Amino acid sequence: MKLKADLFSDTGTRPSAEMRAAMAAAEVGDEQLGEDPTVNRLCRMVAEILGKDDAIYLPSGLMANQISFAVHTQPGDEIIMDQTAHPLHFESAAAAVISGAAINPLAGQGGIFTADQVESALRDHDYHSPRSRVISIEQTTNLGGGRIWPLAEIAKIADLAAENQLKMHLDGARLFNASVASGVEPIAYAQYFDSIWIDLSKGLGAPVGSVLAGSAEFIEAARFWKQRLGGAMRQAGIIAAGGVYALENNIERLKEDHLHARMLAETIADQPGLEINPELVESNIVIFTVQSGESDLFADELLKKGIRVSRIAGKLRAVTHLDLNRDAIRYTVKNIEKTARKLFS
Amino acid sequence: MKLKADLFSDTGTRPSAEMRAAMAAAEVGDEQLGEDPTVNRLCRMVAEILGKDDAIYLPSGLMANQISFAVHTQPGDEIIMDQTAHPLHFESAAAAVISGAAINPLAGQGGIFTADQVESALRDHDYHSPRSRVISIEQTTNLGGGRIWPLAEIAKIADLAAENQLKMHLDGARLFNASVASGVEPIAYAQYFDSIWIDLSKGLGAPVGSVLAGSAEFIEAARFWKQRLGGAMRQAGIIAAGGVYALENNIERLKEDHLHARMLAETIADQPGLEINPELVESNIVIFTVQSGESDLFADELLKKGIRVSRIAGKLRAVTHLDLNRDAIRYTVKNIEKTARKLFS
Amino acid sequence: MKLKADLFSDTGTRPSAEMRAAMAAAEVGDEQLGEDPTVNRLCRMVAEILGKDDAIYLPSGLMANQISFAVHTQPGDEIIMDQTAHPLHFESAAAAVISGAAINPLAGQGGIFTADQVESALRDHDYHSPRSRVISIEQTTNLGGGRIWPLAEIAKIADLAAENQLKMHLDGARLFNASVASGVEPIAYAQYFDSIWIDLSKGLGAPVGSVLAGSAEFIEAARFWKQRLGGAMRQAGIIAAGGVYALENNIERLKEDHLHARMLAETIADQPGLEINPELVESNIVIFTVQSGESDLFADELLKKGIRVSRIAGKLRAVTHLDLNRDAIRYTVKNIEKTARKLFS
Amino acid sequence: MKLKADLFSDTGTRPSAEMRAAMAAAEVGDEQLGEDPTVNRLCRMVAEILGKDDAIYLPSGLMANQISFAVHTQPGDEIIMDQTAHPLHFESAAAAVISGAAINPLAGQGGIFTADQVESALRDHDYHSPRSRVISIEQTTNLGGGRIWPLAEIAKIADLAAENQLKMHLDGARLFNASVASGVEPIAYAQYFDSIWIDLSKGLGAPVGSVLAGSAEFIEAARFWKQRLGGAMRQAGIIAAGGVYALENNIERLKEDHLHARMLAETIADQPGLEINPELVESNIVIFTVQSGESDLFADELLKKGIRVSRIAGKLRAVTHLDLNRDAIRYTVKNIEKTARKLFS
Repeated sequence: MKLKADLFSDTGTRPSAEMRAAMAAAEVGDEQLGEDPTVNRLCRMVAEILGKDDAIYLPSGLMANQISFAVHTQPGDEIIMDQTAHPLHFESAAAAVISGAAINPLAGQGGIFTADQVESALRDHDYHSPRSRVISIEQTTNLGGGRIWPLAEIAKIADLAAENQLKMHLDGARLFNASVASGVEPIAYAQYFDSIWIDLSKGLGAPVGSVLAGSAEFIEAARFWKQRLGGAMRQAGIIAAGGVYALENNIERLKEDHLHARMLAETIADQPGLEINPELVESNIVIFTVQSGESDLFADELLKKGIRVSRIAGKLRAVTHLDLNRDAIRYTVKNIEKTARKLFS
Repeated sequence: MKLKADLFSDTGTRPSAEMRAAMAAAEVGDEQLGEDPTVNRLCRMVAEILGKDDAIYLPSGLMANQISFAVHTQPGDEIIMDQTAHPLHFESAAAAVISGAAINPLAGQGGIFTADQVESALRDHDYHSPRSRVISIEQTTNLGGGRIWPLAEIAKIADLAAENQLKMHLDGARLFNASVASGVEPIAYAQYFDSIWIDLSKGLGAPVGSVLAGSAEFIEAARFWKQRLGGAMRQAGIIAAGGVYALENNIERLKEDHLHARMLAETIADQPGLEINPELVESNIVIFTVQSGESDLFADELLKKGIRVSRIAGKLRAVTHLDLNRDAIRYTVKNIEKTARKLFS
Repeated sequence: MKLKADLFSDTGTRPSAEMRAAMAAAEVGDEQLGEDPTVNRLCRMVAEILGKDDAIYLPSGLMANQISFAVHTQPGDEIIMDQTAHPLHFESAAAAVISGAAINPLAGQGGIFTADQVESALRDHDYHSPRSRVISIEQTTNLGGGRIWPLAEIAKIADLAAENQLKMHLDGARLFNASVASGVEPIAYAQYFDSIWIDLSKGLGAPVGSVLAGSAEFIEAARFWKQRLGGAMRQAGIIAAGGVYALENNIERLKEDHLHARMLAETIADQPGLEINPELVESNIVIFTVQSGESDLFADELLKKGIRVSRIAGKLRAVTHLDLNRDAIRYTVKNIEKTARKLFS
Repeated sequence: MKLKADLFSDTGTRPSAEMRAAMAAAEVGDEQLGEDPTVNRLCRMVAEILGKDDAIYLPSGLMANQISFAVHTQPGDEIIMDQTAHPLHFESAAAAVISGAAINPLAGQGGIFTADQVESALRDHDYHSPRSRVISIEQTTNLGGGRIWPLAEIAKIADLAAENQLKMHLDGARLFNASVASGVEPIAYAQYFDSIWIDLSKGLGAPVGSVLAGSAEFIEAARFWKQRLGGAMRQAGIIAAGGVYALENNIERLKEDHLHARMLAETIADQPGLEINPELVESNIVIFTVQSGESDLFADELLKKGIRVSRIAGKLRAVTHLDLNRDAIRYTVKNIEKTARKLFS
């Protein structure tokens, strides 16, 4: 059955005709040799947006996280992050495998922890403990419900990191969502981080890739890890061109996705058997609870109407994105209402 | 200053004259070639006590944990354990470094978690998640306060492990303490585990080593890892003889250590400014709280009297052992009383 | 300066207008979820060509090698390969980092070793040695000079592997070159291997990617490693479409590249100061020696004429490919003659 | 059958009565906490002998090699060593597993390579190659036949290492053999190395352990790895006392072992069917060839007489040590003569 509204994720968006044209026309070269002009252009754009020396194009966001960890750590080091963070649940224990690094999970709220929590988690530097080495923050929080890290808390944590010689890493898979929603420029967030990456294939709608930025020294080290992990491609300008197009055209429109998410959240809040606090829906992710034991049933009913959501630890998640227009959202709103009433009234 | 009562740990005990004589007389050979008769005898003794096919002698308990994890896992697997467990805090992130394995920490009570908690922690087996692979239990719980895992909960967890093809591992650093205190034979605990080790250099009072037991196949694989990690020694019969002596002479007397721990706990419970529930002191570990912010001061005052305790995450820990006789415990009791009254009355 | 003939590598070819059109029109989906129809089609094509159950699309050939090693080995295993093989020199020690595997290099001829050499390299299975686990073959040999592995030697090595429970891996970066040159079908080579991959971005002229094939069980395991290493992309159908086009259009024309390579080799053989045996130039790689100490000078002179070759361990390497037409080859021939006469007559 | 002359290795020696007495009387403490006075004394002795800041006691020589590599390297680095070196054949690929490091084997003579060979092996520092990072030398060479590295060649290699920012590591398992045979003080060798260890359980005749020395910074880092790999013990003073005794009593007598080895070598050289160059027997290792295909037979015949040698890659190895007195050597000489004449005349 063809889906009428696919809210499974914002990773599934398809390139528009204009983006396809841009890709087809891309000037390319061997990016492994640094000779692809479109890849180089994309990296310069991102480095500038984030106020960093340099940037590197990668096939995925996971690789951006893992390369950052590999550069920042030595075997036996520990990375501090929220208990809902992506590397804990969706990266196949890659930090242990690739970097020999442990993860120390913090019990944040909506994916956001505090400087105090970090302080408590720092290890004494003796022979027994892992060495605390990196603090990793996810902006926006994915499993935390698309929440936006406040700049002030990031600043406090960065101070703590500096005092204790820890590195700051930002998983900016949805950084532009945060920025558009909060009005804080990406560069304002980026200033606190030693490594930071943005994803081209989520809300921005490009088909493939992430761009990781940092100091010249950091990116130089990252190039070795890109090669080692198999991320060095050839005429990647084809897909990088989609990224360039996305940066030039698809950022401001994220507001619309956020509006759609809020529409869904307010609808959900009004339904019997469903629960959400719409105030906490700050970007394009809507995580809600279905009354006890019925979340699979509710998701199945929506799917019969051509609406797909994802199932996450007993909850449901709907993500808005550029392939969902106002009509698709209205259709979803209507069917959430109908389904909830049918099942739970 | 010479200590009058060193309650820092039970790892610091010195071999008795009889144990030293046994070591001096030990028959030895090249244990790396399997030719040390005393090492072989020790391993057979432990295998028999635990009802396993075979056992292997190792220089430390940490190596026993890490070899078990290395044999049970493949890179990218996950080990489930309590958030207070030894490998999380005292093993330098070795599981990540050596095995490429992640740890999933559970929020147990006194170091003891439930089968339900394990069930919630099990991962779906898809490409994104680490693969849940090992459940590791610590008997008795160290940072949990020397608590004893109930056999029934272990059995439930073992059922769950079997259903989900997970391996069961027992960190038995203080298994004999548990056994003497609970009256449950070591073999009764051991039946639920694929790998299990006992420590010779804690309560048993031998100078060096642990013995890891399991199936013939498991021990065969463990031998490769023993070599790889540098645990293969030569005429180790010298120190293994201390282990043989300890197994033959020092198990039953652990009751005395437990009695001493209870004496301390009851004293502490009665003092102003100190807090403990003596009912939860089940073996030889006494963890207590000092009133806000004063735990360092209290420990310093005790040290002036020649009494050393350890400082753990804002609490104090006193451990009883075979080098502390009744007089030393009485001396400690008296000085805890004096110090608490002086500081907190 | 714009190059007139770039013989640096066959990795730098640019997609043709037809290939670009195919990419622009590609049907796409989220390939990380298995929902990209073009990626799926490409994988089915390769699986069929190679006679394997299944296949997986990856951003690079390096990742195909490393995933294969990761699936086939456990930490502490050893991979046998020629001393000139790609993973030893161009993969940043990835096998040690990712798989904890060692490499046992054999001294083959032109990158080709014998079953007897493998037999001598097999380790006794005791606690001291790495475990011999994988035999990795490169077809054609790159640093070996584009030599083609004879099917009969592969068969003998595969027998040996089977007897000793080793896995067979083929780095087929230039498998189609071998096949077109030898007349042996890819599937005939592939039958001897547990894992085998082909590169889309070398002689085939697609911009990005490799496809790794094997049994259903192998590919299932490979999917976990693809995710773990950051190779899981999103709408990768865009670039996969280039691969589909290449498989349909660019295989037979490799003969022309081979003819060009032979033309270059015969020219080189005739020049003063240059040395090569043209009989050993079997595919599209031409490695030649320049008289003592002058290889950098010779390469520099060629570069002044707009001809780029690569410098490899004191030798020069010229690689022919689909972006070099007959005129470019004639231009190169002429300038090799001129330069050699000028420098070495 | 009881052996009359066990020439299998010098690792199998048993502690003498005097050494046993020293161990039984050893003052001990918790060495993991740095509180074992005998361990501390042993470490100071070795640091002084080798002219280094500090030293650390370890359960095996393998752990000394692997800790050194772990401290000196980052994942993806490469260690240069002779193709016969211990870590390549007897350490279970530990460098790959623990450090993610590759090994670049050199084809030396008798285990000794040249500065020129090292220079050729150094990698360009680009994204593709492992980073050349450590040069590891074995003194004396074991599989190389107990050959002694000349100080001058070590000095040249150390210069090269300094120029290229590589670390120098000495596997000094038989350093005292080299020193006694060459008359060069251990400290003279040690000056060229960033890390260096000596073995207590080979020629020195102590039961267990190695001591690794280096700069204060190196040893500090090594302590973390000792803990991480499971090498941190408790009352290790018991076995360390054997090491102290050995250093005080068993060094000079290595000359006798060397004399014995030369006696064996000269005997072997005179026999039909056996081949050796006695001039190359510089210390306590005698590696000889038996005429084609008969080495197992020859070893079996010796074993019937109670003489055990080891079988290594088609050759036989006899190692002299402090448990073999002149009579045992004479007995061996006589039976080598008899057996060779019987089998090969």
